Amino acid sequence: MNSSIIRYILGYVLKMEAILMLLPCLVAVIYQEREGFYFLMVALLCGLLGLLMTYRKPTNFVFYLKEGCISTALSWIFLSFFGCLPFWFSREIPSFTDALFETISGFTTTGASILSDVEALSHCTIFWRSFTHWVGGMGVLVFLLAIIPLSGGSHINLMRAESPGPSVGKLVPKVKYTARILYLIYLGMTILEIILLIAGKMPFFDAINTAFGTAGTGGFGIKNNSMMGYSPYLQWVVTIFMILFGVNFNAYYYVLFHNFKKAFSMEEVRYYFLIIFASIAIIFCDILDMSKGVFDALTHASFQVGSIITTTGFSTIDFNLWPQTSKTILVLLMFVGACAGSTGGGIKVSRFVILFKTLVKELNSYIHPKSIKKIKFEGKPVEHEVVRSINVYFITFMILFSVSVFAVSFEGKDLITNFTAVAATINNIGPGLELVGPTQNFGLFTPFSKYVLMFDMLAGRLELFPLLILFHPAIWKDLFTTKLSSKKPAETK
Amino acid sequence: MNSSIIRYILGYVLKMEAILMLLPCLVAVIYQEREGFYFLMVALLCGLLGLLMTYRKPTNFVFYLKEGCISTALSWIFLSFFGCLPFWFSREIPSFTDALFETISGFTTTGASILSDVEALSHCTIFWRSFTHWVGGMGVLVFLLAIIPLSGGSHINLMRAESPGPSVGKLVPKVKYTARILYLIYLGMTILEIILLIAGKMPFFDAINTAFGTAGTGGFGIKNNSMMGYSPYLQWVVTIFMILFGVNFNAYYYVLFHNFKKAFSMEEVRYYFLIIFASIAIIFCDILDMSKGVFDALTHASFQVGSIITTTGFSTIDFNLWPQTSKTILVLLMFVGACAGSTGGGIKVSRFVILFKTLVKELNSYIHPKSIKKIKFEGKPVEHEVVRSINVYFITFMILFSVSVFAVSFEGKDLITNFTAVAATINNIGPGLELVGPTQNFGLFTPFSKYVLMFDMLAGRLELFPLLILFHPAIWKDLFTTKLSSKKPAETK
Repeated sequence: MNSSIIRYILGYVLKMEAILMLLPCLVAVIYQEREGFYFLMVALLCGLLGLLMTYRKPTNFVFYLKEGCISTALSWIFLSFFGCLPFWFSREIPSFTDALFETISGFTTTGASILSDVEALSHCTIFWRSFTHWVGGMGVLVFLLAIIPLSGGSHINLMRAESPGPSVGKLVPKVKYTARILYLIYLGMTILEIILLIAGKMPFFDAINTAFGTAGTGGFGIKNNSMMGYSPYLQWVVTIFMILFGVNFNAYYYVLFHNFKKAFSMEEVRYYFLIIFASIAIIFCDILDMSKGVFDALTHASFQVGSIITTTGFSTIDFNLWPQTSKTILVLLMFVGACAGSTGGGIKVSRFVILFKTLVKELNSYIHPKSIKKIKFEGKPVEHEVVRSINVYFITFMILFSVSVFAVSFEGKDLITNFTAVAATINNIGPGLELVGPTQNFGLFTPFSKYVLMFDMLAGRLELFPLLILFHPAIWKDLFTTKLSSKKPAETK
Repeated sequence: MNSSIIRYILGYVLKMEAILMLLPCLVAVIYQEREGFYFLMVALLCGLLGLLMTYRKPTNFVFYLKEGCISTALSWIFLSFFGCLPFWFSREIPSFTDALFETISGFTTTGASILSDVEALSHCTIFWRSFTHWVGGMGVLVFLLAIIPLSGGSHINLMRAESPGPSVGKLVPKVKYTARILYLIYLGMTILEIILLIAGKMPFFDAINTAFGTAGTGGFGIKNNSMMGYSPYLQWVVTIFMILFGVNFNAYYYVLFHNFKKAFSMEEVRYYFLIIFASIAIIFCDILDMSKGVFDALTHASFQVGSIITTTGFSTIDFNLWPQTSKTILVLLMFVGACAGSTGGGIKVSRFVILFKTLVKELNSYIHPKSIKKIKFEGKPVEHEVVRSINVYFITFMILFSVSVFAVSFEGKDLITNFTAVAATINNIGPGLELVGPTQNFGLFTPFSKYVLMFDMLAGRLELFPLLILFHPAIWKDLFTTKLSSKKPAETK
């Protein structure tokens, strides 16, 4: 295994985190908060470590899917570990486990919080907390790809490991430029949302943080009641942007280059909107008689559906009090998730579309056993390998899900709490039902359960295998033998 | 489509049902109950219809998987429809929907009941209710295979459609003899259980009915409190036989022919026992402090684990009151189910073993991308086609499951009730949690939900596709055109 390139990438990630952490320092300077000192301290620590780790260039810059997965998984763990230190050092989150939970929840764009009083936090801490969503939404390594001088061809392995969805599409032949275009679209849409929020009289600081939470489909609220206190205009702006950030970014790329026909014919995007409209319609009817009127019901239905399917997790109402049908739809939407190639989590619409098509194909095979027609998706035949990997993904997801619900059950909390807590973390949503409902938080879990849920958040964001692979014995054996063999010649010198 | 053979098989099924229904008539004669009259009436009706439908022999006896599936699905629907008539005519179950629910629950070996007072039923009705379990356990068409004079080669398509599990193993080259051997083992084990139950001082009538419920892994109790009132000896006998009937019957075949090595090396059976022992151990520890002692805890833990994993559904305790960990294990076991080739339901141990192996293989492929090793199961490499069909099965199962939970949610019952009601019916278990817990019944659902759950029971028993295929437009188009084309020559005559 090429472990020197992994070290090199991790070093780069730390250097980047050092730079990112200067932003909350700036916020601290503006609001004259002493908590900024801890951010500066950790930024320096990251910068120093990063410089040390990237000092020696790797012997070769080529690496394979294995190295891609390991660098990705370790990068996210490193980012989260160092990212949580300011929370912990400043005692704003006194427990290390809680601080780590909050940070992983941020970077993975889950938005599940252990805090009961968010408004008590300093501005710089709130800013960093929301900013982790924005960074995590598009992916740290995708950003790295835009700047790191890796030798050509290897980029795709990094991108494949981090990007959500069953297959990685390169927008332009060079991965590097694909990454840059994606980040530019991302930045542009975020700025547009900030402007529209400010236009609705939201304070500047609130607007920035809300936009970060929306863009990354994260969902950390900066008020204790999430988005309940804002005006319907602001709620609608957030609704629309949540749904837009859940769209496959390829669509925006097509729009940007005036290929409207291609953008609007994207199968996944059409199914995505179909599911959204159907869900809103059913929930609207279901909650109409308990709402203050048609507009109120429509606002809440749309906001919650947009929030859950895109796995953002903001809320404008305590949907735990909704009727069963609405709650059941929300739980089902938790698993559907957003489009592949968006910032959203979940299993992804495209996976479900392809899975559903395999089901229909299977039924057809009972009628015409000798037919060998391939499934089509987005106008192209789906390769057998893609179907296989989606199947394996789905099964691995279900197994990890069941094991997690079992592990969390030792706490003795009710089944719905456990079930939706795992669903809300593995799908990177945030709130669940009952004890982890939108007006509750995850602080009540034991440290053991918190670590289980942290694992689920990372596994969900990295789409399982890059994280699970860390537990493969061969990786450790490989790392060990590489180190030994690289040491031996040094000893004999 | 060869629709004449389908008609012929359905006629045979009705003739068989007529004969089977003479047994409750006999019970009515013994206990001098007037309800027996209704059984006799329906038996005559079935016999008459059956004779009419088999009067004209089909033009050819060869049929394909499509015909196999359709005959299987329709047979089960016919069986259930006519099987429920005596309940309805005798007013012992006054509503037709309820009577049909009870009968489908019987034949599919689910054991979910709509009755709150079982003990009020007449003996002949109780007998028929339990007997449907025994008939449905091994499969009606498997029985048919042993007697019907179909031309060679087509049998396997019937058996494939009805037998539980990912692949059909023929024990001996002729399907006909395989079916006979299976039924002989089944009968032998049932008789052995009856003898052991009588030895434990269970009344003869109770012993027969309990053995029927155990053998078919059905679970209709003949007491209102299921098995709670019986002695620990009787509970242990039932525990052991439930677990034995959940074993792949191939193992007994091997034992019968003194091939012990092959019997004990069956991978699926070993995993099955591993899961059972692990579950009992955890639940035992979890419920120890709320039990009357070590033996009591062990008895209840073993009984409930055996009952749920084999999808029988008897209970000796209200496990809805157990701690969360135990309840979570039971819910997970609901989906695991018994071995393929047993009378049990669920997704089946072998499917999970193979799915788990594909997961491990996927992880390995990240490390060694060029490896093309095949998964091995029961010492043989698993064909790609089998893996694919298991994947499709799993996905179809999950989709049907989600749709059903959604459909049932309109009632406004809590999520756990809906979730476990669907889990308990689609996996052919019987009791769930909360409002459908072991001390409750399914009578409280609306007719709409009952039909959804009936569909799930049939879909679960027939392993989805044979039932789902009935909804394929091509089938109806095909039936229509065959009829037209068979009519046309008649018209021109």
